[in-house]
Amino acid sequence: MPPSPLPPPVAALVDAVAPVDGRSAEEARARHLQLTKPPGSLGRIEELGATLAAIAGRVDPPSPVPAVVAVFAGDHGVLAEGVSPWPQEVTAQMIANFCAGGAAINAIARANGLGVRVVNAGVASPVPDHELLRNTPVRPGTRNLRTEAALTVDEAAAAVALGADVARRLTTDEGARCLLTGDMGIGNTTPSAAVIAAVTGTPVAEITGRGTGIDDDTLALKRRVLTEAVDRAGAVSGLPLAAELGGLEIAALCGYCLGGAAARVPVIVDGVIALAGAVLAAQLQPAVTGYLIAGHRSVEPAAGAALDWLGLEPLVDLDLRLGEGTGAALAHPLVVAAVEVLNTMATFGDAGVSEG
Amino acid sequence: MPPSPLPPPVAALVDAVAPVDGRSAEEARARHLQLTKPPGSLGRIEELGATLAAIAGRVDPPSPVPAVVAVFAGDHGVLAEGVSPWPQEVTAQMIANFCAGGAAINAIARANGLGVRVVNAGVASPVPDHELLRNTPVRPGTRNLRTEAALTVDEAAAAVALGADVARRLTTDEGARCLLTGDMGIGNTTPSAAVIAAVTGTPVAEITGRGTGIDDDTLALKRRVLTEAVDRAGAVSGLPLAAELGGLEIAALCGYCLGGAAARVPVIVDGVIALAGAVLAAQLQPAVTGYLIAGHRSVEPAAGAALDWLGLEPLVDLDLRLGEGTGAALAHPLVVAAVEVLNTMATFGDAGVSEG
Repeated sequence: MPPSPLPPPVAALVDAVAPVDGRSAEEARARHLQLTKPPGSLGRIEELGATLAAIAGRVDPPSPVPAVVAVFAGDHGVLAEGVSPWPQEVTAQMIANFCAGGAAINAIARANGLGVRVVNAGVASPVPDHELLRNTPVRPGTRNLRTEAALTVDEAAAAVALGADVARRLTTDEGARCLLTGDMGIGNTTPSAAVIAAVTGTPVAEITGRGTGIDDDTLALKRRVLTEAVDRAGAVSGLPLAAELGGLEIAALCGYCLGGAAARVPVIVDGVIALAGAVLAAQLQPAVTGYLIAGHRSVEPAAGAALDWLGLEPLVDLDLRLGEGTGAALAHPLVVAAVEVLNTMATFGDAGVSEG
Repeated sequence: MPPSPLPPPVAALVDAVAPVDGRSAEEARARHLQLTKPPGSLGRIEELGATLAAIAGRVDPPSPVPAVVAVFAGDHGVLAEGVSPWPQEVTAQMIANFCAGGAAINAIARANGLGVRVVNAGVASPVPDHELLRNTPVRPGTRNLRTEAALTVDEAAAAVALGADVARRLTTDEGARCLLTGDMGIGNTTPSAAVIAAVTGTPVAEITGRGTGIDDDTLALKRRVLTEAVDRAGAVSGLPLAAELGGLEIAALCGYCLGGAAARVPVIVDGVIALAGAVLAAQLQPAVTGYLIAGHRSVEPAAGAALDWLGLEPLVDLDLRLGEGTGAALAHPLVVAAVEVLNTMATFGDAGVSEG
């Protein structure tokens, strides 16, 4: 059976993503050879500069500032299976904490000069409005992916469109030059692992992790739930896969990645939840991968499978397992530095330094 | 033969370093358990916060801003053996580049809001004055450590005192709340590997690296030079070891680490050159280690041996092999974030978030 056509808004989003410019990356690598340092001695900072040049389509990419982390929140019907020790109301409580500036992502964003926005993509309970919150949930949480499709295709498409619209507003309307992914949703490592297992073909047993911290019995349960869910979903991909197994924040993150790519800005991807959105985005539009920068290596095993499938190498590895965008936010200064190095270092000729 | 007494300025410096406060570290760990995130979910950022609390002697450590990277420069008699493809004049040329703001460390410092200072600890040729340069070389380069002591003990002591004085002025006089190590010296991975081999007892064959980039023949030569030098120096430690095998910038970095510790500020250590200074400092005063934060994992194998010996785990690993302080400077934002997290995150109680 051929895949159904994409709903028009998602199709337009996918079509709006152009491949990154490999020639600008080559020009950046050539420029790096002229700068006053031994060739290649800045290691991954040099390759990051080339990536940013490819994204911008110019050898001198713009500064990735201002930068904003959008924290997409959603609840998950699968929580009824007992896959997390945290109660569902924590998702909504943490939205209030993000808005008040008290969460880890707020602290790291303050340290690094990043903006924070919160998006209610589908929290189960009503959430009070706040100036930092986009409070337009697609539906109150997902269905239980163990036993049925978590979302309809229309609901998944609406979540993708929501994420894309957040990216568009942040870049086009508010001038953000770099987008960071964030997430909040009690139980959301379960749908994330399910999506990543389905996309990458990695066995569930290899990629079921402890999330923010579960015991051995819960881990075994989570593995059973994931196995049944992935088997139930069968061989689907793209938007139907997002509907079968995804969370609302995961589908929204998929759209956010596509929207950032359509706006030609770098998208720094956080951990396993964001990577689930990213692999869905790459199924819909492979060219999106060129715009993604992996912020950190999450402790979750599914994150490693997604990074390998996307061909991304994370910038930092700090044993983080929190989410919220914390790993992306901690990596942002490296992106700033990569641009400054590429654009402002002296060449051997300019500085009168002898070459080796 | 008992070790000679330390010259009085070095002895006073060693005595001025007090152990870090383990109780404040414990208080920071306890506080982290109250903050709105799953316990331990910020991984190494949490442990970094505890380290900073121990350094400051309080559960709420001050922001590590303003921060300054001091780039210590020196030349090396062993360069006559052909251990580097770069000509010696590059050391002085790069001092001019640092002062003009064109080097990699300048770019990264601009990106991260760090100050840059340059210290001529012992460049072979005269260097023009500049407002960012402390131009007080101990002597014009070292002697050839393959065949004789690189420095007299008095010269090594003078370099240590120079580094300590730089740390004192930056902290006490200028208000720096965090010091970063930087270095420049053509050929300086050779004395650094020699010092680290001697201190850690690691065989030279295991820790001879390619520096900023040498071919196989030069690597074999470098290994022979290092073997002869370490054998020649014999069983010395501390200041006499700094004299036998050290560079002037390495001895100055030893003093800089001690001076930062005496001022109770965190010292972010860069790569293999800084680590050579750090292991010398730790031989003179083991308590200094509590003040050191390893910025990055250098590609140089001697760096790994020094990190293991010091018991430090680097914050980032970006395949850097440049020096100048670039790895320390790239890690500084993580230190800022660790403080902000510890000091400004909401607790579960304050935020009304349920615990798992």
